[in-house]
Order: sequence, then C-alpha cells, then structure tokens
Amino acid sequence: MDLASIVGFILGAGGIIFGNFLQGSTVMQLIDPIGLVIVLLGTMGATIAGNSVSSLKRAISSIKEVFFSDKVDYEGTILELINYAAKARKNGVLALESDIEASSDPFIKKALSLVIDGIEPHVLMEIMDTELSNIENFGDESIKIFDQAGGYSPTLGIIGAVLGLIHVMQHLNNPSRLGAGIAVAFTATLYGLAFANVILFPVSSKLKINLKAKVLRNELILMGIESIQNGENPRLIEEKLKSFLNESQKKAYEEKNREK
Amino acid sequence: MDLASIVGFILGAGGIIFGNFLQGSTVMQLIDPIGLVIVLLGTMGATIAGNSVSSLKRAISSIKEVFFSDKVDYEGTILELINYAAKARKNGVLALESDIEASSDPFIKKALSLVIDGIEPHVLMEIMDTELSNIENFGDESIKIFDQAGGYSPTLGIIGAVLGLIHVMQHLNNPSRLGAGIAVAFTATLYGLAFANVILFPVSSKLKINLKAKVLRNELILMGIESIQNGENPRLIEEKLKSFLNESQKKAYEEKNREK
Amino acid sequence: MDLASIVGFILGAGGIIFGNFLQGSTVMQLIDPIGLVIVLLGTMGATIAGNSVSSLKRAISSIKEVFFSDKVDYEGTILELINYAAKARKNGVLALESDIEASSDPFIKKALSLVIDGIEPHVLMEIMDTELSNIENFGDESIKIFDQAGGYSPTLGIIGAVLGLIHVMQHLNNPSRLGAGIAVAFTATLYGLAFANVILFPVSSKLKINLKAKVLRNELILMGIESIQNGENPRLIEEKLKSFLNESQKKAYEEKNREK
Amino acid sequence: MDLASIVGFILGAGGIIFGNFLQGSTVMQLIDPIGLVIVLLGTMGATIAGNSVSSLKRAISSIKEVFFSDKVDYEGTILELINYAAKARKNGVLALESDIEASSDPFIKKALSLVIDGIEPHVLMEIMDTELSNIENFGDESIKIFDQAGGYSPTLGIIGAVLGLIHVMQHLNNPSRLGAGIAVAFTATLYGLAFANVILFPVSSKLKINLKAKVLRNELILMGIESIQNGENPRLIEEKLKSFLNESQKKAYEEKNREK
Amino acid sequence: MDLASIVGFILGAGGIIFGNFLQGSTVMQLIDPIGLVIVLLGTMGATIAGNSVSSLKRAISSIKEVFFSDKVDYEGTILELINYAAKARKNGVLALESDIEASSDPFIKKALSLVIDGIEPHVLMEIMDTELSNIENFGDESIKIFDQAGGYSPTLGIIGAVLGLIHVMQHLNNPSRLGAGIAVAFTATLYGLAFANVILFPVSSKLKINLKAKVLRNELILMGIESIQNGENPRLIEEKLKSFLNESQKKAYEEKNREK
Repeated sequence: MDLASIVGFILGAGGIIFGNFLQGSTVMQLIDPIGLVIVLLGTMGATIAGNSVSSLKRAISSIKEVFFSDKVDYEGTILELINYAAKARKNGVLALESDIEASSDPFIKKALSLVIDGIEPHVLMEIMDTELSNIENFGDESIKIFDQAGGYSPTLGIIGAVLGLIHVMQHLNNPSRLGAGIAVAFTATLYGLAFANVILFPVSSKLKINLKAKVLRNELILMGIESIQNGENPRLIEEKLKSFLNESQKKAYEEKNREK
Repeated sequence: MDLASIVGFILGAGGIIFGNFLQGSTVMQLIDPIGLVIVLLGTMGATIAGNSVSSLKRAISSIKEVFFSDKVDYEGTILELINYAAKARKNGVLALESDIEASSDPFIKKALSLVIDGIEPHVLMEIMDTELSNIENFGDESIKIFDQAGGYSPTLGIIGAVLGLIHVMQHLNNPSRLGAGIAVAFTATLYGLAFANVILFPVSSKLKINLKAKVLRNELILMGIESIQNGENPRLIEEKLKSFLNESQKKAYEEKNREK
Repeated sequence: MDLASIVGFILGAGGIIFGNFLQGSTVMQLIDPIGLVIVLLGTMGATIAGNSVSSLKRAISSIKEVFFSDKVDYEGTILELINYAAKARKNGVLALESDIEASSDPFIKKALSLVIDGIEPHVLMEIMDTELSNIENFGDESIKIFDQAGGYSPTLGIIGAVLGLIHVMQHLNNPSRLGAGIAVAFTATLYGLAFANVILFPVSSKLKINLKAKVLRNELILMGIESIQNGENPRLIEEKLKSFLNESQKKAYEEKNREK
Repeated sequence: MDLASIVGFILGAGGIIFGNFLQGSTVMQLIDPIGLVIVLLGTMGATIAGNSVSSLKRAISSIKEVFFSDKVDYEGTILELINYAAKARKNGVLALESDIEASSDPFIKKALSLVIDGIEPHVLMEIMDTELSNIENFGDESIKIFDQAGGYSPTLGIIGAVLGLIHVMQHLNNPSRLGAGIAVAFTATLYGLAFANVILFPVSSKLKINLKAKVLRNELILMGIESIQNGENPRLIEEKLKSFLNESQKKAYEEKNREK
Repeated sequence: MDLASIVGFILGAGGIIFGNFLQGSTVMQLIDPIGLVIVLLGTMGATIAGNSVSSLKRAISSIKEVFFSDKVDYEGTILELINYAAKARKNGVLALESDIEASSDPFIKKALSLVIDGIEPHVLMEIMDTELSNIENFGDESIKIFDQAGGYSPTLGIIGAVLGLIHVMQHLNNPSRLGAGIAVAFTATLYGLAFANVILFPVSSKLKINLKAKVLRNELILMGIESIQNGENPRLIEEKLKSFLNESQKKAYEEKNREK
C-alpha cells in the first residue's frame, strides 16, 4: 500500500470539494454531465487514437502500481547478492543453481541462470542491458500515456467551454438555455484542469518514480552479478553495491546486516 | 487495421458532438465556413511553407499507417532469424541466398544480402546503422510535420477569433453582422483546438509509436544478423534476441515456438 | 525555386485574408499603423538586441534560401564520389587533382584538396568534422534568430493590446478615442500571432530542414572521402553511400546510374 | 545563513504586499480562506500523490538548506587535498589513515578510506562515481518535487477561480454570495501564482544551484583523490585542481594559501 | 561597443513608446508606481532568492558585456597561434616563455605556461578542459539568472493585474479607486511583459551568443596548443584552425595574413 498516493489523491480532490463547500455550494452543483461527456470521452478518444491497444492495456494495469507498489528493497537485494557472491566464491557459480528458484526477482533469476549457463560476461551484460532498456521502454510508454491524457484533458475542458459559449450566443434571449451553456463552459474547464492536475499528472509522476527506483535496483543487480561472475571478493562487492545507497539507506542496511 | 486509432478518433470526435447534442444543439450549428477557411488554410499554409514537397508527401502517405499498420511481429522475426542462424551454422552463410527472396522484410533482405556478399562485419554494421538512422530520420520528419500542424492549428483558431472580434467591433450597431463576428470567434477557436488535439496530435503520437516499434525490431534484426555472421550458437542467439521481449511477448514467443 | 514555401506562404496569408473577406471586411480594415509599429519595431528591437550584427546579416540573407534553395542532390553526389573512387583506385589519389576545380561543392573541394595534400586520414576527419560542425553552428544561429523573433512577436502583440486597453480606460467617455484603443488591442494581437505563425516559424522550420539535408549530404561526403582515402572498392563505397538513401531515392539513383 | 535567499523572499513577498498597500488595501483584504484551502490542499495533494513518502520527507528537510547552506569551500578543499597528496607522497597512502577522521566531508572520508583499503584505482572510481550520481539523483528528486508543486499551484489557482465563477453564476441574484465567488476567483489565482513564483520556484532554483556546487566540489575531490592514488606531484595536483576555480576564486585561493 | 544591442534596445523600447504616442498618449500616462513596485520588487525578490550572492554579482557585472564586449577575433587568434607554432618548431617550446606575457588572452597564457612547464599533453588537456567547462558553467549561471528573471517578470505582471482587479472589486461603488485598480491591472501586465521581452530575454540571448563565441575561440586555442605541443607543421596547424572559420571569416583571415 502506498500511503503517499492515497493521502495525496484524497487531499487533492478533498481540497477542491472542501473549498467548494466553504463557498456554500454542494458537490452536486459541480456535476454537469455535458462537461463530463466532452472532457472524458474527448480525452480518452485522443489518448486511445494515439497509442496501441497493448500499451493502453499496460498503462491501465499500471494504475494499481500507483497504490500498491512495494517499496524497492535495495538493502535486501544487496544482502541477497552478497550471499550469492560468497557461495559462488566458495563452491563455484554452479552452486547458485538452487538459488534461482528462491530468488526474489525475475531480473535476478534471469541473470543468475545466464551465469550458470556459462554465458560469457560481455554477452551476459549485452543481454541484461537489452532486458533492462526493454523494461525502461515499456515503463516509459505507460508514463507517456498518462502525460498525454494530462495534456489533452485541459484542452478538452476549453473545447467544452467554447461549445458552451457558442450555445450561449445562440440563445441569448432564452435565459434557461443560456444558463446551461455557461454551466458547461465552467464545469468543462474545471473537469479538464482537475483531471489533469489532481489525477493524471500525479499518476504519471508516481509511475516515473517507481520506474526509476526499479531501474536503479536492476543496475545495482547488474553490478553485483558482474562482480560475482568475475569472482570478486564479497566484501569488495558489498562496498561497490553500498555506493548505490544514500546515508539513511546505508544505516538501514547496516541494521539489516546485523540482524541477519 | 488498427483498432485503437479507429475507436479513438470516433470516441474523441463523437464525445464533442455528443456533448454538443446533449446541450440541445445540432452539428450544423457548429459549422462555420469562415472559421474553417481561416484555421484549415492557415494551418496548411504555415505547415507547407516550412517543409519540403517530398517530406509533405511522405507525411500525407503515412496517415494510412495510422489506421492500417500491421502489428510489428517481434516473435516471428526472432523465429526467422534463428532459422537462418541454424542454417548458416550447418551449411555456411552462402546457404542463406535462397532465403533472401522469401524474407519478410526489406531490412532483413538488405542485411542478408550483405552477409552473403561477404562484407566484413564492422562495414556491414556501419551500412545497416546508416540505413536504420535513415529510416528514423524520415519517420521523424513526418511526425514533426503533424506536430507542427498541431502547434499552428490552435493559434490560427485564436487568429480567427481575433478577426471575428475586430469585425464585431466595427459593426457594434449592426446586430446581424455582430453575431457573425462572434460566431467566427468561437468556432475558429473550437476548430483550432479540436483539429490539433483530436486529430493532429494523436496522429503524430501513433506515428511515433509505430516508428519506435519498427526501429526496435530493426535493432533486434541487427543483433541477430551480427550473431549469425559471427557464427554464434542458435540457442545463444535466441537468448539474446528474447531480451528484446517483455513478459507477455516472451510467452507468445514460447507458444509460437511450440506450434512450429 | 522552392514550390512548397511559395504555395505555403500564399495559402497561409491568403487563408486569413480570405476568411476576413468572407466576413464582409476588407483588407484595409485589418490595417492599423499603431499595432504595426508596436509589433514590428518591438520584435525587431528585441531580436536585434539579443544577437550580433554579423549573425543578423546572415539570418537575413538566409531568407532567400527559403525560396530558392536547390534540392540537395544526394544521388548526384554519390555518383560523383564513386567516380572519384574509381579514378583514385586506378591512378592514385593524386589523379583527383584535376577534379577539385570541377567539383560541385566547396565541401568536396576542401576534402579532396586535403586528400591530395596527403593529410593523414584521422587529421583530415578532424578538420572536416570541425568544418561541418561549423556549418551546423552558423546555420543554427540563423534558425534561432527566426525562432526568437517568432517568440517575441505574439508577446509584443499582447503588449500592443494592453497599451490599447490602457488608452481605452483613460478615455472611456470619449467614444472616438475609445474605438482607436480597441482597434490597436485587436490588430496588435492579430499581427503578433500572424507574423510568428504564418511567417517567422515556417521560415525557421524551412531553414532547419534545409540545414539538416545539407549536413546529411556532407556526412555522406565524409564517408565517401574516408573510403576513397582508404582505397576501398568503388562497389563497396556505392553500397555504403546508398545506405543514406530512402527507397524512392534509391530508385532515383538506379535510374540516374543507368542513364549515365 | 544564506543572505540572498532571505533578502530575496522578503523582497518578493514584500513587493506584492507593498504594492497592495500603495493601492490603499490592507493585507487582510488579500486573505481569503476558501482560495487558500483550494490552492494549498490541492497543490499539496497533487504533489504528495505523485511522490514517495521518503522523497517528500527529504524535500521538506532540504528547505533548511535554502537558508542555511554553507558556501561550498572549493579553496579549502583544494588545500586539504594537496596536504594529503604531500603526506601520501612522503610516507605512502597509509599515512592518511589518521586524516580520515579529521576530514571535513563524508565524500572525502569515503574516498580516502577506499584508498587506504588498497582498492584499485578504476574500482575506486567506479564506486565513487556511483556514490556521486546517487547524491545527484537524490538531490534532483527534491528539486523536482518543488518544480512539480510550482507547476500545480497556478493551475489550482485557476481551478479555484473557476469554482468561484461557478458559484457566481449560481447566485447572480444574490449580491452578497456573488461577491464571495468573485473574491475566491481572484484570490485563488493570486495565491496560485504567488506561491509558485515567489516561493516554490526560487526554492527549487536555490536547491539546484547548491546541488551543482556540491557536485562540482565532489568532482574536484575525485580528480584530487585519483591523482593522490597515482602518486602525482602535489604541485601538479594543485595546478589540476585550480582549473576548477574562476578568476576571483583563484585569487581567494592564493590568499588562503599564503595565510597558511 | 556593440551596435546591435544598443540599436536593438532603442528600437524595442522606442517602438512601444512610439506606438503609445501615435495613440495620442504620453509616456507619463504609462507610468504607474504601484505596478512598478510589484513587478520590479517581485521579480528581483524571486530571482535573488533562487541564486547565490556571488552569481548574482557576476550576472550584474556581465550586463556591461552586452554593450561593450569586443568582437571575438578568431583570425588574430589563429595568426598568434601559428606564430607560436613556427617559433616552437624552430627553437623548442621553451622559446615561447617570452610570449606568455605578451599574449592577448588569459586562456592562451595559462595553456602556454603549462606547455613550458613541460606538463604532459593529456594532463594539459585535462586541465584546460576543466578550465574551459568552468568558464562555460559560470557563463551559463549568469544567463540562467536573466532567463529566470524573464520568466518571473510576466507572472508578476499578472499578479499585479489580479491585485488591481481585487481592489476594483472591493470598491465598485467608488469610481476614483476603481480607476486606480484598473490602471494597476494594465500597467503591471505591460511592465511584466515588456521587461521580460524587451530587456531581460535579449540580454540573456546576447550573453549566450557571446559565451558561445568565447568557448569556440577557446576550443580553437586548445586545438592549436595541442598541435604546438605535438610539434606539428605550422602549415597543417593553420589548415586545422581555419576549419573553425566560415567563408567570410576565411576571407578576412587571408587578408589579415597578407597584411602581416
């Protein structure tokens, strides 16, 4: 469960609704189906038209990562890798075969199985780098989809506003329809801005941060695997991998290490 | 047929028209030839003036790719390349001569024919890299043309709006001509925003995505051809090329491989 | 003569004027000397202040390239280079001395004369790369000047609009001067947007495209000269240089080659 | 204490308040709790939702650096490093062990301790480069959080303005509630723009500048440590490290050096 | 004296003032102390808060470079370097000792003194590259300060406009104070846009251009010094350095060379 995202979305949407309430309006007074139709369908349409079905599916399924992504456990990953390093140094890399199954992560599994297959170091790195940039590319695609939607949404709000004003102009002498036009103009603008800034951009930002953490962890893994294949000293490998941590993570690592 | 694009464009344009209908207006009430003239001719003019005839032609012909581009078949390409690798390992690269004709793709054809001509690996890579960056450049040019048009379109909408308001100011005492001015002001703004956001930017985005997929596939091909020329083990080549696939593509590949 | 630019500028400006005409206004009604003074002098002033005299001169003289640039003849350049390659292979590079004069292009001339002077390959490449990045830099400077002017122009339109509105506020009780203020407000906005989007940005875009084509051709030339100096097989050089062409250019090349 | 930031924030906020006072308004007339709720909660919500708890904490704790960051002491760092270089040249790198404790900076401490541990130069550089890019990454994260908040804030100001206008439209016949709506519309816009431009963006800019100075100093340190490990002449090391200084820093360095 | 900047600033400011005059307003009618206080103090405050005292001082002192920077003399620099090259080839690099004092430029002085000190070529290049990127960094800092101020200024204009409108709303029944509010609204907008576009951005652009020319000259110097240290033929060095010149500069160089 990602607390920041849950608190953030509640705070953002809540702030707008609470401000509206303080003015003496109800939430119902902010709901206008016409504005909703224009902004939602328009934004969805433009976003869908400019992407492929598979990447749209991946983007939608990545939303749950915003709320339920596990914190990337750099410290545990380092301990796991040093463990492998010690074992490989003592009994050779083939001794790691039993660890592949138990490993915490598909990226480590893949890298370890290539080590055991005896793939040459530079070929292994070529394969794992492609794998990693593949992970980055697919992640970026989802992020861009939310960024695009966040770009379209306010513009469709303005399109809704203009549509409303055109309606107003055509019925200047009919006050009831005039009111409808103005309502569309304002609520469409509101929806467009709020969807983008309170939902879509924060989602994109969170996915970006999660992806960056995942990529950093995989770079740490690659440095570790490379050192294991080179048969380096586990203490040196630890020193190398700890350089990925900041001060507070280093402290957390030392604690975990002691507990072990 | 690209479902996402078709559904997307219908949804986007439909959302605006449906919202307008919900307001009690007809589509006819959104049509204003003056706004259309200003936004369409102006956007086309600015876009044409800043590009060459040949790149404009290519951009226009790329529109059909938005709707009818085949999904890039990474899995099939890998199977094809491993097939060549096995053959070349058994009977030498000259045995691939008969496969050039049958190959699925001009990029593979070109690379294979260079292999058979006995071009040195680093020269072959130099040639194919130039070929690939050439494909990227021409693709980028088309994308930029739609991006440019999408940038001009809303501004020409505003130019139309200002023209309409100037007209309004000059005929403040003539209500019928006043209405015409206001109509131009609003519909030109609407057209400018809608063309850009519901048509031009999604087209550009789709072309970008298609180009990226094509480039990735060609990079996969180059890695495969390089390995074939080096006479590498087909099983290792498979391992290398599979690193271009994500989890679901890897599954699809295994299935295709089993069917074979 | 560059058809796209001429047609484009006529279409762009024509669309605005035609739209204005359809509204029932004349071109004269769009002309306001005050708005013109503010937008033109202001944009020119800001652009001149931020650049050097020499780069401003070069930018102005580059305008004619927008209309009269020759299409870059990649195919002819390849034929010329292969011709040199064949000659140099038969009779040595000194045999190319007579071709320097006849060569189509200062970049080829410079490179050939260095080859004949016996400059070492890596020094020759260092010199020609500096020469090429020099061409790019000076080209970029002109492009940026038009981009800058295109950025200032709409803002000066808004400055003109604000000035007009200040005037309006100061003479609310004098209708004739009030009208003048509103006219400046609208026409200045119109001029600012139209200069930028119908003239300045398309000019910048065209210069960018011409520069890119020129740079690509010079990269092709450098690859060719390097191969000539290495004494490579003309058929291989042809293969290398053809990788710069797209499908339709390859066809055009084959035709030219046959005609020869 | 960072004078520029303190003076700057007082000047920025003071200018707005003083301008308001010159108009004949009091500060109290600028305070509207509804606008404050919408802009503050909305901006905080969107920013929190798009980031992780740990990076938000780090961003908040970095605010004190804006006001209390020490000036980076390049000159002192050079003197310290040359001191180590001289000692290491005379008595070997192990003689530096006692200096680790006394060293002014965790980055130097870490690098020195690796030198003493006898880590090979290229491994040491690999570790320290990762350490440095880690420092940059975490710094960038905090900067981006303030940049994001600065992007959301004006938009939430506009959302507040639209909410206010919707309220106005719903109570056109009730002048007292009408006033409330207009007040929200204007103050929310004001808050959104002022928070971003007078607080958030300057904070981000200051953090960026502090980070850049810290990174530059660490690059200087790495160049020094590398030279110490290579056993280079302290005078040459001084020459190398002084190239990081500008003219006035070079003068300050010569003075410090003389004082010593 | 830099003619372009002086003419440019006069033209830019003059165009606005002249346009205002054509409308029948005087300059005095554009002066509003309240708007000035908000825009100037606000922009200065935000800019100062986000930068360090030393970089703000450097930015202010760089303003005089906008008006009084000497044209970078590439041709003279080449002649000077070739002169050194010839001398060093005849009598060894130590013969250049007497030239350090007489040299035109601190960058040449520094490089020459390192040559004479017998610093190894790759170390010399490392030192001079750091020196050069240092010059670039400090120059960039000043440029960014003006860019930042140019970004804040229009926003503070809008903040001033909103403040004015809030005042208007609070005194709707008091026409004299109403006028004051509207005046602040318009003049603050005007000041914000004009400061940014007629002063701050052109200053930043000019500094950018001057910096680029200085960096290019220093790169030319480094290529020359490297060749001198390698003892290359002065005629080859001339050929190398001339590749930094464009056609008209090459002509100017040939003339200067002949005069010599």
